[in-house]
Amino acid sequence: MKIVLAATGKTDAAWLREGICMYCERLTHYFPFEIRTVPDVKNARNISEEQQKEKEGEAILKILQPGDYCVLLDEKGGQFTSLQFAAYLEKKTHAVRRLVFIAGGPYGFGEAVYKAAQEKISISNMTFSHQLIRLIFLEQLYRACTIIRREPYHHG
Amino acid sequence: MKIVLAATGKTDAAWLREGICMYCERLTHYFPFEIRTVPDVKNARNISEEQQKEKEGEAILKILQPGDYCVLLDEKGGQFTSLQFAAYLEKKTHAVRRLVFIAGGPYGFGEAVYKAAQEKISISNMTFSHQLIRLIFLEQLYRACTIIRREPYHHG
Repeated sequence: MKIVLAATGKTDAAWLREGICMYCERLTHYFPFEIRTVPDVKNARNISEEQQKEKEGEAILKILQPGDYCVLLDEKGGQFTSLQFAAYLEKKTHAVRRLVFIAGGPYGFGEAVYKAAQEKISISNMTFSHQLIRLIFLEQLYRACTIIRREPYHHG
Repeated sequence: MKIVLAATGKTDAAWLREGICMYCERLTHYFPFEIRTVPDVKNARNISEEQQKEKEGEAILKILQPGDYCVLLDEKGGQFTSLQFAAYLEKKTHAVRRLVFIAGGPYGFGEAVYKAAQEKISISNMTFSHQLIRLIFLEQLYRACTIIRREPYHHG
Protein backbone atom coordinates (compact mmCIF):
# COMPACT_ATOMS: atom_id res chain seq x y z
CA MET A 1 0.00 0.00 0.00
CA LYS A 2 1.15 3.48 -0.82
CA ILE A 3 0.21 6.32 1.52
CA VAL A 4 -0.25 9.89 0.28
CA LEU A 5 -0.89 13.03 2.32
CA ALA A 6 -2.49 15.69 0.14
CA ALA A 7 -2.55 19.27 1.39
CA THR A 8 -3.31 22.75 0.13
CA GLY A 9 -0.57 25.34 0.00
CA LYS A 10 3.11 25.06 0.68
CA THR A 11 4.28 24.85 4.28
CA ASP A 12 5.41 28.37 5.15
CA ALA A 13 7.73 28.05 8.15
CA ALA A 14 11.17 26.50 7.62
CA TRP A 15 11.11 24.81 11.05
CA LEU A 16 7.79 23.18 10.21
CA ARG A 17 9.07 21.98 6.83
CA GLU A 18 12.03 20.45 8.63
CA GLY A 19 9.83 18.60 11.13
CA ILE A 20 7.57 17.35 8.35
CA CYS A 21 10.62 16.14 6.38
CA MET A 22 11.89 14.24 9.40
CA TYR A 23 8.66 12.26 9.77
CA CYS A 24 8.40 11.78 5.98
CA GLU A 25 11.82 10.26 5.95
CA ARG A 26 10.98 7.96 8.87
CA LEU A 27 7.71 6.91 7.22
CA THR A 28 9.37 5.76 4.03
CA HIS A 29 10.99 2.95 6.05
CA TYR A 30 7.50 1.48 6.51
CA PHE A 31 5.42 2.47 3.50
CA PRO A 32 5.94 4.11 0.13
CA PHE A 33 4.92 7.58 1.20
CA GLU A 34 4.51 10.93 -0.48
CA ILE A 35 3.23 14.39 0.38
CA ARG A 36 1.40 16.12 -2.45
CA THR A 37 0.69 19.81 -2.04
CA VAL A 38 -1.40 21.85 -4.42
CA PRO A 39 -0.64 25.55 -4.86
CA ASP A 40 -2.39 28.15 -2.74
CA VAL A 41 -5.34 29.71 -4.54
CA LYS A 42 -4.30 32.92 -6.28
CA ASN A 43 -5.97 36.18 -5.27
CA ALA A 44 -7.63 34.43 -2.33
CA ARG A 45 -8.35 37.81 -0.75
CA ASN A 46 -10.69 38.75 -3.56
CA ILE A 47 -12.91 35.68 -3.39
CA SER A 48 -15.24 34.26 -0.75
CA GLU A 49 -14.30 31.45 1.61
CA GLU A 50 -16.67 29.17 -0.27
CA GLN A 51 -15.02 29.99 -3.61
CA GLN A 52 -11.59 29.42 -2.11
CA LYS A 53 -12.60 26.01 -0.77
CA GLU A 54 -14.09 25.11 -4.15
CA LYS A 55 -10.91 26.04 -6.02
CA GLU A 56 -8.70 24.25 -3.50
CA GLY A 57 -10.95 21.22 -3.85
CA GLU A 58 -10.64 21.15 -7.65
CA ALA A 59 -6.85 21.08 -7.34
CA ILE A 60 -6.86 18.44 -4.60
CA LEU A 61 -9.21 16.16 -6.53
CA LYS A 62 -6.78 16.08 -9.45
CA ILE A 63 -4.37 14.18 -7.19
CA LEU A 64 -6.83 11.31 -6.79
CA GLN A 65 -6.61 8.22 -8.98
CA PRO A 66 -9.29 5.61 -9.66
CA GLY A 67 -9.33 3.08 -6.84
CA ASP A 68 -7.80 5.38 -4.23
CA TYR A 69 -9.21 5.14 -0.74
CA CYS A 70 -9.64 8.73 0.33
CA VAL A 71 -9.79 9.88 3.96
CA LEU A 72 -10.36 13.49 5.04
CA LEU A 73 -8.69 14.86 8.16
CA ASP A 74 -11.80 16.61 9.31
CA GLU A 75 -13.11 17.70 12.67
CA LYS A 76 -16.48 16.11 11.87
CA GLY A 77 -14.81 12.71 11.51
CA GLY A 78 -14.54 9.77 13.87
CA GLN A 79 -11.80 9.70 16.47
CA PHE A 80 -9.26 7.00 17.20
CA THR A 81 -6.73 6.33 19.90
CA SER A 82 -3.23 5.79 18.49
CA LEU A 83 -3.63 2.02 18.97
CA GLN A 84 -6.98 2.06 17.15
CA PHE A 85 -5.48 4.11 14.33
CA ALA A 86 -2.62 1.62 14.00
CA ALA A 87 -5.15 -1.24 13.74
CA TYR A 88 -7.10 0.79 11.16
CA LEU A 89 -3.97 1.37 9.10
CA GLU A 90 -2.94 -2.27 9.27
CA LYS A 91 -6.37 -3.39 8.08
CA LYS A 92 -6.20 -0.97 5.16
CA THR A 93 -2.86 -2.40 3.99
CA HIS A 94 -4.68 -5.59 3.01
CA ALA A 95 -7.55 -3.86 1.24
CA VAL A 96 -6.28 -0.71 -0.41
CA ARG A 97 -3.67 0.02 -3.07
CA ARG A 98 -3.32 3.74 -2.39
CA LEU A 99 -4.52 5.40 0.80
CA VAL A 100 -4.85 9.16 0.41
CA PHE A 101 -5.30 11.37 3.46
CA ILE A 102 -6.39 14.91 2.69
CA ALA A 103 -5.67 17.85 4.97
CA GLY A 104 -7.90 20.84 4.28
CA GLY A 105 -7.03 24.43 3.54
CA PRO A 106 -7.53 27.24 6.06
CA TYR A 107 -11.35 27.05 5.77
CA GLY A 108 -11.70 23.28 5.54
CA PHE A 109 -13.07 21.33 2.59
CA GLY A 110 -15.39 22.15 -0.27
CA GLU A 111 -18.44 20.02 -1.00
CA ALA A 112 -16.80 18.17 -3.91
CA VAL A 113 -13.99 16.94 -1.66
CA TYR A 114 -16.48 15.66 0.91
CA LYS A 115 -18.25 13.78 -1.87
CA ALA A 116 -15.04 12.22 -3.18
CA ALA A 117 -13.96 10.89 0.21
CA GLN A 118 -14.77 7.47 1.61
CA GLU A 119 -14.19 8.47 5.21
CA LYS A 120 -13.44 11.27 7.69
CA ILE A 121 -11.03 11.07 10.62
CA SER A 122 -10.75 13.68 13.35
CA ILE A 123 -7.46 14.07 15.23
CA SER A 124 -8.93 16.13 18.04
CA ASN A 125 -11.96 18.15 19.12
CA MET A 126 -9.60 21.10 18.96
CA THR A 127 -8.84 22.90 15.71
CA PHE A 128 -5.18 23.01 14.71
CA SER A 129 -3.63 25.27 12.12
CA HIS A 130 -3.94 23.69 8.66
CA GLN A 131 -0.16 23.83 8.40
CA LEU A 132 0.57 22.28 11.79
CA ILE A 133 -1.90 19.44 11.24
CA ARG A 134 0.49 17.99 8.65
CA LEU A 135 3.20 17.54 11.24
CA ILE A 136 0.76 16.25 13.86
CA PHE A 137 -0.73 13.72 11.47
CA LEU A 138 2.65 12.49 10.22
CA GLU A 139 3.72 11.81 13.79
CA GLN A 140 0.54 9.73 14.21
CA LEU A 141 1.22 7.84 10.98
CA TYR A 142 4.79 7.16 12.13
CA ARG A 143 3.53 6.13 15.59
CA ALA A 144 1.03 3.76 13.94
CA CYS A 145 3.83 2.16 11.89
CA THR A 146 5.90 1.54 15.02
CA ILE A 147 2.85 0.08 16.79
CA ILE A 148 2.16 -2.28 13.87
CA ARG A 149 5.79 -3.44 13.92
CA ARG A 150 5.86 -3.60 17.74
CA GLU A 151 8.75 -1.17 17.91
CA PRO A 152 9.37 0.70 21.17
CA TYR A 153 8.24 4.22 20.24
CA HIS A 154 4.70 4.24 21.59
CA HIS A 155 4.26 4.04 25.36
CA GLY A 156 0.61 3.02 25.59
CA MET B 1 -2.87 35.90 35.19
CA LYS B 2 0.47 34.34 34.40
CA ILE B 3 0.56 31.14 32.37
CA VAL B 4 3.32 28.56 32.78
CA LEU B 5 3.94 25.42 30.76
CA ALA B 6 6.02 22.96 32.77
CA ALA B 7 7.65 20.06 30.96
CA THR B 8 10.21 17.36 31.55
CA GLY B 9 13.43 17.31 29.56
CA LYS B 10 14.79 19.77 27.07
CA THR B 11 13.30 19.85 23.59
CA ASP B 12 15.74 17.87 21.45
CA ALA B 13 15.12 18.92 17.85
CA ALA B 14 16.20 22.41 16.79
CA TRP B 15 13.20 22.78 14.44
CA LEU B 16 10.85 21.97 17.31
CA ARG B 17 12.56 24.46 19.62
CA GLU B 18 12.13 27.07 16.90
CA GLY B 19 8.42 26.38 16.52
CA ILE B 20 7.92 26.45 20.29
CA CYS B 21 9.80 29.77 20.50
CA MET B 22 7.60 31.26 17.82
CA TYR B 23 4.40 30.49 19.74
CA CYS B 24 6.00 31.55 23.06
CA GLU B 25 6.82 34.88 21.58
CA ARG B 26 3.28 35.30 20.21
CA LEU B 27 1.77 34.30 23.56
CA THR B 28 3.63 36.96 25.50
CA HIS B 29 1.53 39.56 23.64
CA TYR B 30 -1.50 38.23 25.51
CA PHE B 31 -0.31 36.86 28.87
CA PRO B 32 2.87 36.81 30.90
CA PHE B 33 4.02 33.39 29.78
CA GLU B 34 6.92 31.11 30.57
CA ILE B 35 8.04 27.57 29.75
CA ARG B 36 9.76 25.81 32.63
CA THR B 37 11.58 22.59 31.82
CA VAL B 38 13.10 20.30 34.40
CA PRO B 39 16.17 18.25 33.47
CA ASP B 40 15.80 14.74 32.11
CA VAL B 41 16.26 12.11 34.79
CA LYS B 42 19.85 10.89 34.87
CA ASN B 43 20.56 7.22 34.19
CA ALA B 44 16.95 6.71 33.15
CA ARG B 45 17.91 3.44 31.47
CA ASN B 46 18.83 1.89 34.79
CA ILE B 47 15.58 2.61 36.60
CA SER B 48 11.98 1.49 36.06
CA GLU B 49 9.34 3.57 34.30
CA GLU B 50 7.64 4.10 37.66
CA GLN B 51 10.86 5.35 39.25
CA GLN B 52 11.47 7.66 36.31
CA LYS B 53 7.97 9.13 36.59
CA GLU B 54 8.44 9.60 40.32
CA LYS B 55 11.76 11.44 39.89
CA GLU B 56 10.35 13.59 37.07
CA GLY B 57 7.38 14.38 39.29
CA GLU B 58 9.56 15.51 42.19
CA ALA B 59 11.34 17.97 39.92
CA ILE B 60 8.11 19.23 38.34
CA LEU B 61 6.44 19.77 41.71
CA LYS B 62 9.26 22.12 42.75
CA ILE B 63 8.04 24.52 40.06
CA LEU B 64 4.66 24.88 41.75
CA GLN B 65 3.94 27.76 44.11
CA PRO B 66 1.19 28.03 46.73
CA GLY B 67 -2.03 29.16 45.08
CA ASP B 68 -1.15 27.90 41.60
CA TYR B 69 -3.94 26.35 39.60
CA CYS B 70 -2.39 23.24 38.13
CA VAL B 71 -3.68 21.46 35.02
CA LEU B 72 -2.22 18.24 33.60
CA LEU B 73 -2.13 17.62 29.87
CA ASP B 74 -3.24 14.05 30.22
CA GLU B 75 -5.04 11.63 27.96
CA LYS B 76 -7.43 10.76 30.81
CA GLY B 77 -8.58 14.38 31.00
CA GLY B 78 -11.63 16.12 29.65
CA GLN B 79 -11.67 17.36 26.07
CA PHE B 80 -12.51 20.79 24.72
CA THR B 81 -13.07 22.31 21.34
CA SER B 82 -10.84 25.31 20.70
CA LEU B 83 -13.77 27.64 21.41
CA GLN B 84 -14.50 25.87 24.68
CA PHE B 85 -10.84 26.02 25.65
CA ALA B 86 -10.80 29.76 24.97
CA ALA B 87 -13.86 30.21 27.21
CA TYR B 88 -12.16 28.08 29.87
CA LEU B 89 -9.01 30.19 29.70
CA GLU B 90 -10.93 33.44 29.86
CA LYS B 91 -12.82 32.27 32.93
CA LYS B 92 -9.56 31.33 34.63
CA THR B 93 -8.10 34.82 34.10
CA HIS B 94 -10.63 36.14 36.62
CA ALA B 95 -10.03 33.44 39.21
CA VAL B 96 -6.41 32.38 39.10
CA ARG B 97 -3.11 34.19 39.66
CA ARG B 98 -0.86 31.61 38.06
CA LEU B 99 -2.14 28.88 35.74
CA VAL B 100 0.36 26.05 35.36
CA PHE B 101 -0.08 23.46 32.63
CA ILE B 102 2.08 20.37 33.03
CA ALA B 103 3.14 18.20 30.10
CA GLY B 104 4.29 14.75 31.17
CA GLY B 105 7.51 12.91 30.44
CA PRO B 106 7.73 9.97 28.02
CA TYR B 107 5.77 7.68 30.39
CA GLY B 108 3.22 10.20 31.65
CA PHE B 109 2.83 11.40 35.23
CA GLY B 110 3.73 9.95 38.61
CA GLU B 111 1.12 9.66 41.35
CA ALA B 112 2.35 12.75 43.24
CA VAL B 113 1.79 14.96 40.19
CA TYR B 114 -1.76 13.63 39.76
CA LYS B 115 -2.41 14.47 43.41
CA ALA B 116 -1.03 18.01 43.09
CA ALA B 117 -3.17 18.89 40.07
CA GLN B 118 -6.59 20.49 40.18
CA GLU B 119 -7.59 19.31 36.73
CA LYS B 120 -6.71 17.21 33.67
CA ILE B 121 -7.16 18.24 30.05
CA SER B 122 -6.81 15.92 27.08
CA ILE B 123 -5.85 17.35 23.70
CA SER B 124 -6.80 14.25 21.75
CA ASN B 125 -7.66 10.56 22.06
CA MET B 126 -4.41 10.02 20.22
CA THR B 127 -1.06 9.99 21.99
CA PHE B 128 1.48 12.53 20.77
CA SER B 129 5.20 12.53 21.51
CA HIS B 130 5.86 14.27 24.83
CA GLN B 131 8.08 16.72 22.95
CA LEU B 132 5.61 17.50 20.18
CA ILE B 133 2.75 18.07 22.63
CA ARG B 134 4.46 21.27 23.75
CA LEU B 135 4.19 22.77 20.29
CA ILE B 136 0.63 21.49 19.81
CA PHE B 137 -0.51 22.89 23.14
CA LEU B 138 1.16 26.27 22.59
CA GLU B 139 -0.68 26.63 19.31
CA GLN B 140 -3.94 25.96 21.18
CA LEU B 141 -3.06 28.52 23.84
CA TYR B 142 -2.27 31.06 21.14
CA ARG B 143 -5.48 30.18 19.29
CA ALA B 144 -7.45 30.62 22.52
CA CYS B 145 -5.92 34.07 23.02
CA THR B 146 -6.93 35.15 19.52
CA ILE B 147 -10.46 33.79 20.09
CA ILE B 148 -10.78 35.72 23.38
CA ARG B 149 -9.65 38.91 21.62
CA ARG B 150 -11.80 38.17 18.55
CA GLU B 151 -8.79 38.28 16.26
CA PRO B 152 -9.01 36.60 12.86
CA TYR B 153 -6.79 33.54 13.41
CA HIS B 154 -9.36 30.88 14.25
CA HIS B 155 -11.78 29.88 11.51
CA GLY B 156 -14.48 28.11 13.51
